[in-house]
Order: sequence, then structure tokens, then C-alpha cells
Amino acid sequence: MPGETSLHVVVLGSGVIGLTTAHVLSTRYPECRITIVARDLPDDLSSQAWSSPWAGADWSPMGEYEELRYKREAKTFNKLWDMIPTGLVRTLPSRICYTQEVDSDKIWYKDLVRDFRILPKKEVPSGAASGVAFTTVSLNPGLYLPWLKSELDTRGVTFIKKKVYSIGEVAEIAGPKGVVINATGLGARSLIGVQDKAVYPIRGQTILAYAPGVQEFLSYPLGLASVPTGQATYMIPRPSPPGHVLIGGTFQEDNWDLSIDFDIAKAIWSRCLELAPGLNDKETKILGHNVGLRPARRGGARIEAEWFKMPLKSEFLPSPDPLEKEHDFLVIHAYGFG
Amino acid sequence: MPGETSLHVVVLGSGVIGLTTAHVLSTRYPECRITIVARDLPDDLSSQAWSSPWAGADWSPMGEYEELRYKREAKTFNKLWDMIPTGLVRTLPSRICYTQEVDSDKIWYKDLVRDFRILPKKEVPSGAASGVAFTTVSLNPGLYLPWLKSELDTRGVTFIKKKVYSIGEVAEIAGPKGVVINATGLGARSLIGVQDKAVYPIRGQTILAYAPGVQEFLSYPLGLASVPTGQATYMIPRPSPPGHVLIGGTFQEDNWDLSIDFDIAKAIWSRCLELAPGLNDKETKILGHNVGLRPARRGGARIEAEWFKMPLKSEFLPSPDPLEKEHDFLVIHAYGFG
Repeated sequence: MPGETSLHVVVLGSGVIGLTTAHVLSTRYPECRITIVARDLPDDLSSQAWSSPWAGADWSPMGEYEELRYKREAKTFNKLWDMIPTGLVRTLPSRICYTQEVDSDKIWYKDLVRDFRILPKKEVPSGAASGVAFTTVSLNPGLYLPWLKSELDTRGVTFIKKKVYSIGEVAEIAGPKGVVINATGLGARSLIGVQDKAVYPIRGQTILAYAPGVQEFLSYPLGLASVPTGQATYMIPRPSPPGHVLIGGTFQEDNWDLSIDFDIAKAIWSRCLELAPGLNDKETKILGHNVGLRPARRGGARIEAEWFKMPLKSEFLPSPDPLEKEHDFLVIHAYGFG
Repeated sequence: MPGETSLHVVVLGSGVIGLTTAHVLSTRYPECRITIVARDLPDDLSSQAWSSPWAGADWSPMGEYEELRYKREAKTFNKLWDMIPTGLVRTLPSRICYTQEVDSDKIWYKDLVRDFRILPKKEVPSGAASGVAFTTVSLNPGLYLPWLKSELDTRGVTFIKKKVYSIGEVAEIAGPKGVVINATGLGARSLIGVQDKAVYPIRGQTILAYAPGVQEFLSYPLGLASVPTGQATYMIPRPSPPGHVLIGGTFQEDNWDLSIDFDIAKAIWSRCLELAPGLNDKETKILGHNVGLRPARRGGARIEAEWFKMPLKSEFLPSPDPLEKEHDFLVIHAYGFG
């Protein structure tokens, strides 16, 4: 158990980034004292202000090849693969379609996933020009986040449920020798001292269904002519409970609307019925509709160290305590993963 | 205490409308069994998905004269006035400015409030053409909502924390002889069976400050040429803690953005400094920034009874249990008060 004199790391945010960072830190540096400060804790998965519980979540390729992306994604994929024995992650057969012919040599993730192959023409769903199949991993955030929370509890990590307005407040919790990990996601826009306007939401509307006839990850390409802008078409079977499938979706940039648009829900449902005949099973049931806001950032995620002069001077905090001793304070930013 | 055979009223939503409705019902009909079902309960005031805790909240005139509005507002004002002895409400001197000369005869609320007078020219703040002063009431929702909750607990009202997707789910909780009060606010857009697209948010960004130099409600007129569209200028001293003032604000229609816009915060602050020199006190401190979404409705609030045929048939609920007996089910809508 960590002592009072050791380094104190305060993680701000209890989404998948904050909790996973705390987990890695507590594994590698068991002598380190760790506190997680967040508006919502993982025992309240229903809060809509918190995006992680609504994630799919499977490993799926996003964007073009970049060296840094490849390294990060390979690490993520392998870590998830190694977690299969825990029961929190399962392997998942996956098919992704494209609007153009694909060149196998140009698919950056083909050696990262398992069982990669180009789909023969007869297996390509209608509307798409080509497709690939592979084995990926799927994780249920509704199980994973509480599991992380209980692991961290066991390791003596402290949780504080608190809405924090500024880096100054969290510096006070951390103490002069503390360090802060800023894993606030969309909150980085509003956190005084950071106020990062590059952070923006990508609205994701999804349907949670019991659909035992859908056994693999399936997706139509983004940007398909017949699909309205901002909409997507995908199905992600979850490792548990059996038959639960997350059906999406939307990628609506700068859209904060948390209400459910039933015209969109209807459009998603009919596209998915076309892509996956197994969805038309008589046992299929809609269980719920969700909207989550993916915390994205123009220019990409921010993974960066920054030194702050304490006490924080800000026009929005007009009266810092004049007696507070000046010191430098380290913040490690980890947000904007979208 | 209500028995199992009495009428069962399920109130959906635990904002100021839901809790107050339950309170009135339990006062008038103590034999009635009442259950409140809501995603957020009043013991978690920090949830941003819930707008009531962020309200000002003082009584202030909104809109033009309408007979129904007058009756409703008179009832509200008098009820709040009568609550002063409880300590939850205080009287509040109030000054409201207008962009045009006012005709005292046309001010519909002048006999509803106390101590009404037209401001002499020398008391009208710069930028405004005229102004009125009166005594109104102010309530702190951060105290009022938990007080209502504890009153309801004492009366045997049951609280269920649950995210409800459809009228069907809440009908099941209510039972065949039950009645539902739909006090879901913005949630009425997403509730299956209701799906009311006339409901929309009016974004309100505010600053909570300790400002003992501000002792009265003050507001500049909406639509002042020098103020950006969607912004307003007002200060609402809260009954407690002493010196706490809610400083606003914005009225941004159809804007769901829950992040804090610091350019707006700065603009609000400087306009309020001009309106209330007392804000420039050396003791003034910014305590926090908030964004709340006022649950408004095109065409006005919906206060209406509606009979549903159960089980609910909806394309978004493809498989209702075929064995469930058909029955009529009463829902009383009470949402969209903005």
C-alpha cells in the first residue's frame, strides 16, 4: 500500500482513459498514491454526461496509416487480445466493406488483426465494392469499467466524486508534490487552465438489441452514397450478455444533442436489416436507444506534459488565495481520443 | 400511508415539475400511492443531464399577457410568497430594464408582485430606456429539491432510479390501474410513445459567484443592441448561502452544448459589472461556471391528458409480449416549461 510520502497522482476523469491509466500506473508503480477525481464514478453507468459506457466497444480500424497510430493500435489490440482469458473480452469475427476496390498491400492493420482475408466478390454485401474479413476483439464497457473500478478499489486507489472547475482545484487535491493526469475528455473544453477549444463532440446514436442472429461485427463503408451525411452502419456483438448487439450509428461532428432522433434510429435499423439478414430473426428485440458524445479533438488526441505556475492566474478565478505558495505543477494531458 | 389497492400514480422525472407535482398530490390525496421514476434523483445534484438544480431561481416575468399565463403565474408567485417562513424562499428587491418607454397600464404583472413602481429616469441604468422595480421571491433549487425529496420520503413516496425508454415500461411499473405523470422535460423528445419533436433546449450559461455587494435582482432587457444574440444580462441573489449570486446568462435556442464558453462568460461578467457596481467588490469571487438546458417547447408547455392503448405498439419496440392483456392507460403530460 502506498504511503503518505510517495508521489501522489491525481487522475481527473473516470472514463476508459482515466481508469485504464490508473490501472497501468498502479500495476507498474505500486508505491505510488493514486486518487481519481470525477463528476461521475463507474458505479453510475446511466449518466449520459459520461460517454464511455455507451461505447461499442470492439477494436476496429479507424483512419489511414500513421506510424504513431500503428504503434498505439498494435499495443491496444494485443493488450485486449491478452485479456480474453479474463472473460471481459471475446474474439469477434468481423467484416468491413469499402466503397472502392481494396489493395491488400495498403491495408495497414492486416498484420495487426488475426485471420485477415480479402472477401471474394460473392461475399461482398450489396452496395459495397469490396470487403475484408478478420478476427478482432470486443469488450463490454458495462462490465469492463466496473471491473476496473473494483480492481482499483482493491489496490487502495481513492475515488472522489466531485465536479472540478479548474486545474487549481485539482492541484490543491494533489498537493505540491502531486501530478495530475488530465483525462477529462469533452470536459477539457471547460476546465479552467486548459480551456481547449480544439475538443469537440462526435455524436453517436445507437440501438441496443437482443439479436442472437447477429454473430459477427459488420459494417458498411462510411460515405456510402445512399447513407445520409453523419450516419454510419455497423453492428457490434457484445461479449455479454449473450445475444446483445450494439447497432449504429452516427458520426455527427459538433453535435451535442443528447435526445434520440427516431428518424435516424429507423434509418439505422433498416440499413442494418439489409446488411445482416440475421437481424430479421423473430427473437430480435430492441432493448434501448442511446446517444453518446465521442470526445474528439481537432489535430488529434493530446498526450502531452505541461507545467503550470501555481496558484493559477485566470480572469475566471479573480481571487486566488494570496497566501498560497508559488510552485510549479505538472499536468499530463490525455484526452481527445474520439 | 397508502394501501396496495389505492390509485397508483407514477411520476416520471424528478425535476422541479415532477417533485412538486408529487408533493401536491401527496398533500391533497394522502391515500394515493406515489412512485417517482427518474434517471437522476435529487441526491445527485451534480448531474448535468438534469436542468433544475442550475435554475436561478427567482420569480421574474416572462412573455406578454395571456389569461392562462396570468393565472398560472399568480398562483406560482403566491405559493412561493407563502413559503417564505420555511426559509427556502426569500423576498428579493428586483429591477428590470426595458429598451423602450414602459406604460404602467400595460405591465401585466404589476399587481401580482409587491411594491411595484416605475423607475425615475435617474435610477435607470445606462443603455436602457426605462425600468421598473418591485419585490419578488427567490428560491435556491439546491436546497428546495433535497427538501422536497425528504418531505416525499417522509410521506412514503417511493423513488426508483431508472432510465426509462418508453411509456410501455412506465405503464408496467404503474400497473393496469395506474396513472403516469410525464414530467420528463427534454426527455419527452426521446420517450417512446411520446417522441415530441416540439421540445427543444434553451441553453443557459451562468456564473455562480460570492458577491455580497449584489443584493437585488437586476436585469438588462433582452434584445439590447449591444448584446450578442442569445445572450442576456441578469443577477439573481440566492436566499442561501449568504452572498451567493447566480449571474447570467444566455438564452440560446436549440443549442445542446454543455461545455463552458469562456468568451461568453467574460462577456456576461463585464456586462454585469457595468449594471451592478457592487459586483466590483474586492470580496467578490467566482465559485463556478454552469451550463443548463431549459426544457422548452414550441407552442408552449404541454399540460394534457392522453389515453394510450396498452401494450404499446411502436416500430421501435418490435416485440411486445403478445400475452400482455390489452387495456387503456392514462398519461398526464406536464413538460416543456422552459
